[in-house]
Amino acid sequence: MVLSTGTISLKAPEGSKAIVVKNLYLSCDPYMRSRMTKSDKPSYVPSYNPGSAITGFGVAKVVDSDHSKFKEGDLVWGMTGWEEYSLITNPDTLFKIENTDVPLSYYTGLLGMPGMTAYVGFYEVCSPKKGENVFISAASGAVGQLVGQFAKLMGCYVVGSAGSKEKVNLLKSKFGFDAAFNYKEEQDLDAALKSYFPEGIDIYFENVGGKMLDAVLLNMKLHGRIAVCGMISQYNLEKPEGVHNLLNVIGKRIRMEGFLVFDYFHLYPKFLDLIIPNIKEGKITYVEDTAEGLHNAPGALIGLFTGRNVGKQVVVVAPVE
Amino acid sequence: MVLSTGTISLKAPEGSKAIVVKNLYLSCDPYMRSRMTKSDKPSYVPSYNPGSAITGFGVAKVVDSDHSKFKEGDLVWGMTGWEEYSLITNPDTLFKIENTDVPLSYYTGLLGMPGMTAYVGFYEVCSPKKGENVFISAASGAVGQLVGQFAKLMGCYVVGSAGSKEKVNLLKSKFGFDAAFNYKEEQDLDAALKSYFPEGIDIYFENVGGKMLDAVLLNMKLHGRIAVCGMISQYNLEKPEGVHNLLNVIGKRIRMEGFLVFDYFHLYPKFLDLIIPNIKEGKITYVEDTAEGLHNAPGALIGLFTGRNVGKQVVVVAPVE
Repeated sequence: MVLSTGTISLKAPEGSKAIVVKNLYLSCDPYMRSRMTKSDKPSYVPSYNPGSAITGFGVAKVVDSDHSKFKEGDLVWGMTGWEEYSLITNPDTLFKIENTDVPLSYYTGLLGMPGMTAYVGFYEVCSPKKGENVFISAASGAVGQLVGQFAKLMGCYVVGSAGSKEKVNLLKSKFGFDAAFNYKEEQDLDAALKSYFPEGIDIYFENVGGKMLDAVLLNMKLHGRIAVCGMISQYNLEKPEGVHNLLNVIGKRIRMEGFLVFDYFHLYPKFLDLIIPNIKEGKITYVEDTAEGLHNAPGALIGLFTGRNVGKQVVVVAPVE
Repeated sequence: MVLSTGTISLKAPEGSKAIVVKNLYLSCDPYMRSRMTKSDKPSYVPSYNPGSAITGFGVAKVVDSDHSKFKEGDLVWGMTGWEEYSLITNPDTLFKIENTDVPLSYYTGLLGMPGMTAYVGFYEVCSPKKGENVFISAASGAVGQLVGQFAKLMGCYVVGSAGSKEKVNLLKSKFGFDAAFNYKEEQDLDAALKSYFPEGIDIYFENVGGKMLDAVLLNMKLHGRIAVCGMISQYNLEKPEGVHNLLNVIGKRIRMEGFLVFDYFHLYPKFLDLIIPNIKEGKITYVEDTAEGLHNAPGALIGLFTGRNVGKQVVVVAPVE
């Protein structure tokens, strides 16, 4: 990734239905890694084009609009460029921001794609029931921290794993997890899970893959569900690790289901109806890790894959005026 | 396994609610392998007790009954012993055979547990739709041959894999599969699947696990479903093989679901209503591999795990009088 300088017209071409936005916040998300691998297979998001600006989710302010839905000054979130200003030629994919009495950066996380991911992954894919045992890996991340809070709101027993003492403390003290552990300090993940889930796991919200998934499979309960949201531990490997314990899927009648938030954006208004009051009443909280300035964006993105971020990784491009 | 001789009273003890049966056909099924491993974990079927007769599904005739539901001469199928006569202390788990104008051995296969497995696995777990692309491994086995025929009845494109030329021919000539291949002759399972499924697989009926599952994951279509019925290639391994391609579960939104027929036996009457007319009209056919006599039963069971059987493996204990 290279930081480069260029010029852009701040006028949307007439008849283009495009808009020009000033980018305020950019979102660093694990799925972006897959866009850095050239693939001959169709993917849900196109590969990046070397030499072009990286694209990703962000919060932006409309500077000029040739589109009837948007006008100058509107705040939006959705796919934008990693640059100061972006020309967006398909603005129909953007969401207009109506609730502005919350931190605007939340629209990269809690109120944006990761928040929706947590919402649909938990409520639509996990089929949760009150009192069930829920395990979340990468639990302090942009998605995990919210899944845990949803599960607690539903009266579940919730345990999370994370990669540092600071994150583990956050899970317990800030997000209300019943327990949490640092996977890097556990010699035996199977034994760790057995100690936190003596009766087994009903729901596993999978964010990491590999060894953790293998250990979880040994500890699932009958009719358990695994919502496969991500496998961040595998994205930078030449060959993904082998998972050996899939036999458990049969005897325990486990449902393991991959999902992508992109299939569920029609539920966004329903999600906002649930989440906004909970934020205002202080029942849902959110932790962000902010990098200041576009020059810090590449490092912030790369840091995701070593777990450097504590909470949702955001890049602040420009102050909100 | 040892063949031994003993005596049994042919009278059901008074007040015991037990029955005594003469065993006619015994079923060799892959799940029996798991019962030969002592496990500290609860399982859906108990481990075998060394020194006792093996139990399994079979077809039997009631010789004496202390149970109001059964009388001498009734034909039943369900859990019985690998012996000439068995005392069955919990006969409520048995099914009474009402349709006797089909081969009675079918109640170990087509009309028994494997048939029900194919039925619920395909219709209840796979969520099949007309015209979808269906792949079945161990496709000439007790379950696979029927899954393929169900899929053809629904208007799907159906391909099966099996372990010999004879089995492959059977799939194409007898069961109406659109195509079939011998996995032992394929150097590259991924390439083989790509040639049979240029547009990908909607439904994978999983009977084998390991390398085949890994290759299938590369070839699943978006929103594909994997019904995990068995993983016979893994049961005799010290450590199951690693499956490396689970990342596909996310991007392709794959649902992978383990199931056990034991959860679905309430659907048995519905299954018979579907299958009996289809058998009589010749729309569903079934191939059995029979071993004659109890002394050949151990070899028949072991043969399952090297694929020696062609079709459903049955042991004939006694001729039907």
